[in-house]
Amino acid sequence: MQSHYADRLDEAIRRKRTPALVGIDPRLDQLPAEILQRAERAGGSRDEVAAAAFDEFCGRLIDVVSGLVPAVKPQAAFFEQYGPAGTAVLARVIRRARDAGLIVICDAKRGDIGSTAEAYAQAYLAGADPDAAPWAADALTVNPFLGQDTLEPFVEVASRRGAGLYVLVRTSNPGAGTLQDLVADERPIYRHTARMVEELASASAGQSGWGAVGAVVGATYPRELAELREVMPSVSLLVPGYGSQGAGAADVAAAFNPDGLGAVVNSSRGINFAYRREPFAEEFGETRWEDAVQAATVQMIADLAEATPAGTLR
Amino acid sequence: MQSHYADRLDEAIRRKRTPALVGIDPRLDQLPAEILQRAERAGGSRDEVAAAAFDEFCGRLIDVVSGLVPAVKPQAAFFEQYGPAGTAVLARVIRRARDAGLIVICDAKRGDIGSTAEAYAQAYLAGADPDAAPWAADALTVNPFLGQDTLEPFVEVASRRGAGLYVLVRTSNPGAGTLQDLVADERPIYRHTARMVEELASASAGQSGWGAVGAVVGATYPRELAELREVMPSVSLLVPGYGSQGAGAADVAAAFNPDGLGAVVNSSRGINFAYRREPFAEEFGETRWEDAVQAATVQMIADLAEATPAGTLR
Repeated sequence: MQSHYADRLDEAIRRKRTPALVGIDPRLDQLPAEILQRAERAGGSRDEVAAAAFDEFCGRLIDVVSGLVPAVKPQAAFFEQYGPAGTAVLARVIRRARDAGLIVICDAKRGDIGSTAEAYAQAYLAGADPDAAPWAADALTVNPFLGQDTLEPFVEVASRRGAGLYVLVRTSNPGAGTLQDLVADERPIYRHTARMVEELASASAGQSGWGAVGAVVGATYPRELAELREVMPSVSLLVPGYGSQGAGAADVAAAFNPDGLGAVVNSSRGINFAYRREPFAEEFGETRWEDAVQAATVQMIADLAEATPAGTLR
Repeated sequence: MQSHYADRLDEAIRRKRTPALVGIDPRLDQLPAEILQRAERAGGSRDEVAAAAFDEFCGRLIDVVSGLVPAVKPQAAFFEQYGPAGTAVLARVIRRARDAGLIVICDAKRGDIGSTAEAYAQAYLAGADPDAAPWAADALTVNPFLGQDTLEPFVEVASRRGAGLYVLVRTSNPGAGTLQDLVADERPIYRHTARMVEELASASAGQSGWGAVGAVVGATYPRELAELREVMPSVSLLVPGYGSQGAGAADVAAAFNPDGLGAVVNSSRGINFAYRREPFAEEFGETRWEDAVQAATVQMIADLAEATPAGTLR
């Protein structure tokens, strides 16, 4: 077993021949009606009904995508919205994805100081051994705002367990620049964060050359994405913003090395709820929502292969 | 019922005549042995044993401090470390504290974009109605790194529910300056964050004049604390770093207006585990850990009254 996170991720990308990452973003008001109704018939509190519906939806979603992509990214917030019942389903969904051979990146954007950061790391970073943490993720997204010393407890736990981290460097939202684009010492804040992340990555590199510490860089800012790929040569990227947030395959081409490695590109809503969107809504409709998930995933894989160096993986 | 968060907080501070805030930071390796042993005898998985021990410890801690202070601040990470069982106990601890008349600030430092931020807000911000969210906190700490647009969903939910927010502006850890002290447009990043927070606060002010949006400013940097008090006149402060992290009552004096309002000062370990520290360890010992909690809380209240404008509340 490859125990370094980046080595495990590279192996998974090579095996599936694509860097497509499927976000798991369950939303109660967009679930297929049959799943909701079954959960309602089973009864329970509002949170328990939502949790049961998420359990079925995410499990079936994983069954569809596990043969197609190397990794999934559950968004913790959508599970936490339904309280402890939701967090229990998040743990089950992560285990089910790992059992299906997927790399799991838990998108929880945690960040805190000292022993508190370590507690979060213990909670989410299982790494190579799925029994090592209650939410058994391979990797976790983290927020660098509190400073470099607050990333270190995450890095220590990750290195010990063969787990990975993705530090927010340049996010995909319209207001990302409020703080991240401010210029200090002639460079934007995202470049200062990038330098910190490159240092942590080069100090934690696996056989692949990539560090256990990666970075989140939004697809919605292609110029910054190209710039950040260049200044962080040891840093594996997680690129959100593809699909529903507006970026296309050409926008993410610069995230990759010529061999097609170095990044995973995430799509969440565009795949999870493809049955509600054209061109898939007309073809499949709600009763065939899993076929829509499959078609949207296959489409994304093809688009990335066509317009980026990821095509060399095919 | 006062429904605005800041009005409810001011009323609680006036009623208890102190701005002392007790952090709830349970750590398995520091709990009194009798509590741990009782949880172990009841059986269950490692996480269930820890959760049961936290349930008893935090409940008894709340019973001791609820007559003394206006508010408590549970740290989500220490509960999450023990998985879904831990998050269920966090929900119970928050309810128990509210039932005891305490204001509850959940320290979870969440931050994400758009509808994801809204999901976190829905999860934690109960505000004036404890049934409005699964973790029924009055207020939540949030991270501003992703930008102003990512704070807005939190502000909307908070305003609707009479809940509060504390945005990280200048944290208490040694490496806080890595990003927060970088100087852009002749001002450190923490001043840019402060301007954003002051705008959100003045736009959400209650009868007290304080906004629903407050700020976290560490006690360990007294000069920045004084500067930030001055430039954020509408912003109620949450001041961590007192006690175990090294700051004393004199260091936090500048956080207050002359009437003793405008801030709450947090101590966690120094109170939770006072029985393990001098001067309380010798006097009380482990079997009288609750007496040590009480003595440490009374001492902190007296120190704040002596060395800060909070003395005018007595």
